[in-house]
Amino acid sequence: MTPAIGTQDLEPFVALANRLADSAGAVSSRYFRTPVAVDVKADASPVTIADREAEGAMRDLLSTHAPTHGVFGEEFGHASGSDPDWTWVLDPIDGTKSFITGRPLFGTLIALTHRGVPVLGVLDQPILRERWVGVLGAETSLNGLPIHTRPCASVGDAYLFATTPHMFSGPNAEAFARVRDASRIPQYGCDCYAYGLVARGLADVVVEADLKPYDFLALVPILEGAGGVMTDWMGEALRLDPETITEAHEVVAAGDARTHAQALELLDWRR
Amino acid sequence: MTPAIGTQDLEPFVALANRLADSAGAVSSRYFRTPVAVDVKADASPVTIADREAEGAMRDLLSTHAPTHGVFGEEFGHASGSDPDWTWVLDPIDGTKSFITGRPLFGTLIALTHRGVPVLGVLDQPILRERWVGVLGAETSLNGLPIHTRPCASVGDAYLFATTPHMFSGPNAEAFARVRDASRIPQYGCDCYAYGLVARGLADVVVEADLKPYDFLALVPILEGAGGVMTDWMGEALRLDPETITEAHEVVAAGDARTHAQALELLDWRR
Repeated sequence: MTPAIGTQDLEPFVALANRLADSAGAVSSRYFRTPVAVDVKADASPVTIADREAEGAMRDLLSTHAPTHGVFGEEFGHASGSDPDWTWVLDPIDGTKSFITGRPLFGTLIALTHRGVPVLGVLDQPILRERWVGVLGAETSLNGLPIHTRPCASVGDAYLFATTPHMFSGPNAEAFARVRDASRIPQYGCDCYAYGLVARGLADVVVEADLKPYDFLALVPILEGAGGVMTDWMGEALRLDPETITEAHEVVAAGDARTHAQALELLDWRR
Repeated sequence: MTPAIGTQDLEPFVALANRLADSAGAVSSRYFRTPVAVDVKADASPVTIADREAEGAMRDLLSTHAPTHGVFGEEFGHASGSDPDWTWVLDPIDGTKSFITGRPLFGTLIALTHRGVPVLGVLDQPILRERWVGVLGAETSLNGLPIHTRPCASVGDAYLFATTPHMFSGPNAEAFARVRDASRIPQYGCDCYAYGLVARGLADVVVEADLKPYDFLALVPILEGAGGVMTDWMGEALRLDPETITEAHEVVAAGDARTHAQALELLDWRR
């Protein structure tokens, strides 16, 4: 087994991730609040010209600057690289519904995984010009300044986020309702941005379901580098696994490990 | 009966409303994303030092520049003026939950009512520096430029907003669910800002309940001056009525009268 990846090994990739975010943000800013052609995908989620162009811009950069790496993106799927260790996981516009209704809470999500482990994550909001960067072993930053989660002793003290109550169905809905009912205030409507708020110490817990790997992998290093915890509903680490790459995933992120542990208990997903 | 109020009669009050918005926005911007003391009001909604200071700043301006007018504000209640015709209706921070979690989708709402009719409305988002101004008989503006709602033939084509599904209970919840299930995409989480999106032609319908007059009166001239329709769930005009000033109200706003009419049918509130 080769030695583990260190923070300094990732520095060139951080610079590249910033370039990807710049290129995607330039596209989405140009289309924001303009009439954009909206299609509907097989899963009924909307997709715009801006989604496709922004992912295309990032893939162009990767093909030049990281030609041996794999790429997995929301719009154009998975392409293996000659080096099986590294894969970039891209969501050009997470929160397409926010984007098409003119709310500046969508974001570009960029993760780099090493042997499946997300070791670098960027969340970029190009309208507000806010960029979160999380790197394995380093402090998370927001626009270059270190940020930290805040203490929250229990779910009962927590400001809870989920993108929408309609992302939960069947047993997922019951599990979510248990956390929601225990939380201080449940709020909806901000996709990836909610995780940025937790990392920034402005909210406490996010519980979501029906997500794809490109919806959450970038957020793991951001949460962890800010002092938070982010896992699936079983408490397992979130990884890029070829076997589950197209499946729906459940995630729970919290700024305080105590709230995370209690949320897992309430979700009660092991039974 | 005196002649009806004309648009030009309102010009000095538009200038004053802009000053109120400036003063409230200066307060809320200063406190945004800082640790603010949060209290909980009798109705369990949070209130911050910023809410109180922002309303105080607006009331100070009104006592100097419109001393004969009444004032009704979220934080400090109702004070009648010596002139019974005019009342300012103020919500210093509509969307306090957005404010305290660091989301720039809260807004200052300022309405001026003449004999109960909202004839002037301002929605101000101080972080994004966006200001909607609606005046009886005039085109609504966003940052000084005229805006218009967009066509939307039916609820089935509509992007629907409500602040949260938890604002509906009992028969209200059933009525809302009928509109929600018929809509193209339901979305949550942006308080007054959703009405601004409808006025701007970026969303189509807002259905809400459990609102107080300061939560919606400013939005009526904004919606109407942009080509939309905004009423209660019975289709009745929204007015400041001393008899219902402290009651909870239901409102429905749409950019296209066809969608508004169909939403009323689905709400089916007359039965």
